[in-house]
Amino acid sequence: MLDTPTRLLPLSRCSINTATLGHRSPIGGVIERVARHGFGGISPWRRDLEGQDHRLVGRHLRDAGLSLSGYCRGTYFPGADRAAFEANVADNRRAIDEAAALGAPCFVLVVGSLPEGTKNLASARSQVAEGLSALLPYARDAGVGLAVEPLHPMYAGDRSCITSLSEALALCQNLDPSRLGGIGVAIDVYHVWWDWRLSDDIAAAGRAGRIMAFHVCDWLVPTADLLLDRGMTGEGVIDVKRIRSQVEATGYDRFAEVEVFSKRWWSTPEDDVLAACAKGFASI
Amino acid sequence: MLDTPTRLLPLSRCSINTATLGHRSPIGGVIERVARHGFGGISPWRRDLEGQDHRLVGRHLRDAGLSLSGYCRGTYFPGADRAAFEANVADNRRAIDEAAALGAPCFVLVVGSLPEGTKNLASARSQVAEGLSALLPYARDAGVGLAVEPLHPMYAGDRSCITSLSEALALCQNLDPSRLGGIGVAIDVYHVWWDWRLSDDIAAAGRAGRIMAFHVCDWLVPTADLLLDRGMTGEGVIDVKRIRSQVEATGYDRFAEVEVFSKRWWSTPEDDVLAACAKGFASI
Repeated sequence: MLDTPTRLLPLSRCSINTATLGHRSPIGGVIERVARHGFGGISPWRRDLEGQDHRLVGRHLRDAGLSLSGYCRGTYFPGADRAAFEANVADNRRAIDEAAALGAPCFVLVVGSLPEGTKNLASARSQVAEGLSALLPYARDAGVGLAVEPLHPMYAGDRSCITSLSEALALCQNLDPSRLGGIGVAIDVYHVWWDWRLSDDIAAAGRAGRIMAFHVCDWLVPTADLLLDRGMTGEGVIDVKRIRSQVEATGYDRFAEVEVFSKRWWSTPEDDVLAACAKGFASI
Repeated sequence: MLDTPTRLLPLSRCSINTATLGHRSPIGGVIERVARHGFGGISPWRRDLEGQDHRLVGRHLRDAGLSLSGYCRGTYFPGADRAAFEANVADNRRAIDEAAALGAPCFVLVVGSLPEGTKNLASARSQVAEGLSALLPYARDAGVGLAVEPLHPMYAGDRSCITSLSEALALCQNLDPSRLGGIGVAIDVYHVWWDWRLSDDIAAAGRAGRIMAFHVCDWLVPTADLLLDRGMTGEGVIDVKRIRSQVEATGYDRFAEVEVFSKRWWSTPEDDVLAACAKGFASI
């Protein structure tokens, strides 16, 4: 395991994923609020920008002094039939256009898993690979990286058939064997912290130039809900500081993005949530 | 991926883990009930046998026509300090004595994880390895196999720092490099079904002679509770039949053991639960 001395990072290296605020307010106000708290980045969701001009939103956030750490998130690839699959790919193509208009460096893909009533993970994985393969040239032309986010195995039934960093990296390697780039991974500590291969996989991801995003939050013991009970960084049992050091040791020098899905935090005033994000970030 | 034609198995190849019945009745009645339904095996928990003579219980279940598929389950190894760790090892040693008195072929170990207030998974893993290493000669002398059960990564915080079959196999290999035996794995579909390496790992486990137990149940979508919302085999999204075929293809010819933790099934009459176990077993 490779360790490097931990350095303190300025808040300008911290980005706020808008899901952390619970999608309660219009994006304009969220941008102002995130900037006012001193964060350097933001990562909006598609749902925050419905009906908006993505180019204008991108200008607004840059005027506010913010950079984008990503754009969330992919439509699940696997479909019950071919038409559903193709509609999902087409929707992701539109999202890539939006990401390009925003000026986002990468589009984060949660890839989906078993279509309802099915049990064939291999088939879901094959649809994911085919979908990403279809998107890759398009995303390269648009200058938007495809950031594949492996999800925690507890989402393998419905949200992501890609359940570990090593699996995501193998997928990237298959789709981009010459390492031209344009496809990589989003590493979220919540999804990968349990993995005995994690430090090796982070190092491998760094060597291959695949780390496009790094997300932080925490795992609570006990966890009351599979989806909406994440902890703020520092509240739980993940050694986020150690994982952050491993990611930085690869040369990654972009944002740590705070992404917390939590009924509890979503019922906390937005300014308090952002103060907690800053405090959590300081702890790593 | 290695596939073999699926064969139907007789109910004599199915074992009932007593947790599936919710530990509602004394073990004597549970033995009679399980035998009456035609199952060939049973796997009791330590808590079912408190204050009992394990040798007599073993005789009772054999007289009822049942075999043992295992004895559940290990005390978590990691402790807050050295004394706690050693007490945990000593408790597991007593459990091995009990398993031997019962006549159980293996003792299933859920290894534990982070002591409260800690975040160091590497240290927990190291305590687990040390504990197993201390137990192995003792278990060999007793003729009881140590069956390490990797748990689903959603239990990495509190119940098991061993979160994949490949990790459990590497641990076995480290502790028994010459493959003398006496240490292996319990494969529970609930804990490992999501793993892209699963079919390779099952084949490797078989080649190394490490498969000591095979547990079945199902993953429900949605899952309402991290601990107590398992499905009966066939109710969920796991392709149990396929995994069972892969396990059998290694030459494994012992029990498929039904282990379901479920508030719902625990409030269902025991005879109905056993009927559902038989029906689920028929589906794989």
